[in-house]
Amino acid sequence: MSEKARIGLDLFGGDNAPHSNLEGAIFALKNKYIDELFLIGGEESLKKDIPEELHSKIKFVKAENLVDNHTKPTEVLKLKKSSIYVGTEMMKNGKLDAFVSAGNTGALLAAGTFVTGRIKGIDRPALVIPLPGKGGKPRVLVDGGANAELKPAHFVSLAKVGVAFAKFLGIKNPKVHILNIGTEESKGTRLVKEAAEYLTNEPKIDYVGFVEGRDIFEKEIDVIVTDGFTGNNTLKTIEGTAYYIMSELKEKITE
Amino acid sequence: MSEKARIGLDLFGGDNAPHSNLEGAIFALKNKYIDELFLIGGEESLKKDIPEELHSKIKFVKAENLVDNHTKPTEVLKLKKSSIYVGTEMMKNGKLDAFVSAGNTGALLAAGTFVTGRIKGIDRPALVIPLPGKGGKPRVLVDGGANAELKPAHFVSLAKVGVAFAKFLGIKNPKVHILNIGTEESKGTRLVKEAAEYLTNEPKIDYVGFVEGRDIFEKEIDVIVTDGFTGNNTLKTIEGTAYYIMSELKEKITE
Repeated sequence: MSEKARIGLDLFGGDNAPHSNLEGAIFALKNKYIDELFLIGGEESLKKDIPEELHSKIKFVKAENLVDNHTKPTEVLKLKKSSIYVGTEMMKNGKLDAFVSAGNTGALLAAGTFVTGRIKGIDRPALVIPLPGKGGKPRVLVDGGANAELKPAHFVSLAKVGVAFAKFLGIKNPKVHILNIGTEESKGTRLVKEAAEYLTNEPKIDYVGFVEGRDIFEKEIDVIVTDGFTGNNTLKTIEGTAYYIMSELKEKITE
Repeated sequence: MSEKARIGLDLFGGDNAPHSNLEGAIFALKNKYIDELFLIGGEESLKKDIPEELHSKIKFVKAENLVDNHTKPTEVLKLKKSSIYVGTEMMKNGKLDAFVSAGNTGALLAAGTFVTGRIKGIDRPALVIPLPGKGGKPRVLVDGGANAELKPAHFVSLAKVGVAFAKFLGIKNPKVHILNIGTEESKGTRLVKEAAEYLTNEPKIDYVGFVEGRDIFEKEIDVIVTDGFTGNNTLKTIEGTAYYIMSELKEKITE
């Protein structure tokens, strides 16, 4: 990564594009979270919506709005003028240090894997989901849905990506747990039992053991690894439960 | 089932046995939820703790406290004097219509499957978990953890058991959903996609489609089927999320 991080932002994709995407970009620039921003899919005419003192930090990159939520993941590989293709290609060519998109997750994943390519030692892409937790301490869940079906050895990649993300969130020496339906070694599927062996034998990973869904939010949890089906279902169950509890509380309060 | 349901209750097992088990039995008898109760592992001396007007409804069955949470599931099949073995054997011999135990789940499952035996047409045991939901309407999740790994065809058994339980909870013509990470047919693992085909082809099951974790508590949900790993993790995630939200709320309120 260069001294000053060069961030690419997809102006398309997301529920409120490009307005919200641009708003976020301005917020990040104003607060100096970003040094150099490439607005992918942006045109010079947008400058009128951006405070003048930020203009020097922004570059516009031509791209088209060709991907929506109905686009099949692999289709994006043919849409070379799409903002997702352009952004992931800039990553590949070293023109960006990171590319951010709120667009079609599957398409972004496909383009990230096949256009940008994987980092050496990471054999599967992963969706890393930061979660809140007790005592205000964050934790990350990997994989949040990139790989519906995984082999045990892939858990090593997930753990590495999760540890890197956890460090970025300020967690020193992140500990790794595998999500399972019990904490005893004999519990769970062959997948998690074999994944546990791989992580135990990985010297660079501080693997602790299994964690159950009921302990996801406990203070001592840093990185939780799981397959994409379980991870995605876990996230959506958290969301559904939180929403249900809040709606029940509101009803009781306003009764 | 005989006109008057004969219920067997395991007096051992559970965090507060036999006190809580007996308390529950007295509550159920007093409220006429039960006509005839067999206290398995109970002795005549317990009568002093039970209101006299209920004595005629209770029978004591000799059994020993041989199973704890460290007992391996299949070990119970050799422990023929254990309350779980005695209860499941009474089921097999037609002496009980139902057997209730708060003891070791794995042991109960093993004894239920191999001592009592399965109902014709049900090729896998299931843990059915009733859940609350919006508008005060209940719903059931199957399987809550009996089968960590399942084949697609087994989902038919789970659906049948779930529908029977949902009817018992007062839901007329229960609809069946499969838990998945998306509602589109193309989403998810091979397991759920093939299970969906089996349920679609089952004329006695009103199969609707996939449901995501975020919609578990919606009004229109009656029966959710899933494999035991996903189901157990989903339950524990609901528990963990609810506990986390309540603890955060308490903290904010008492701050």
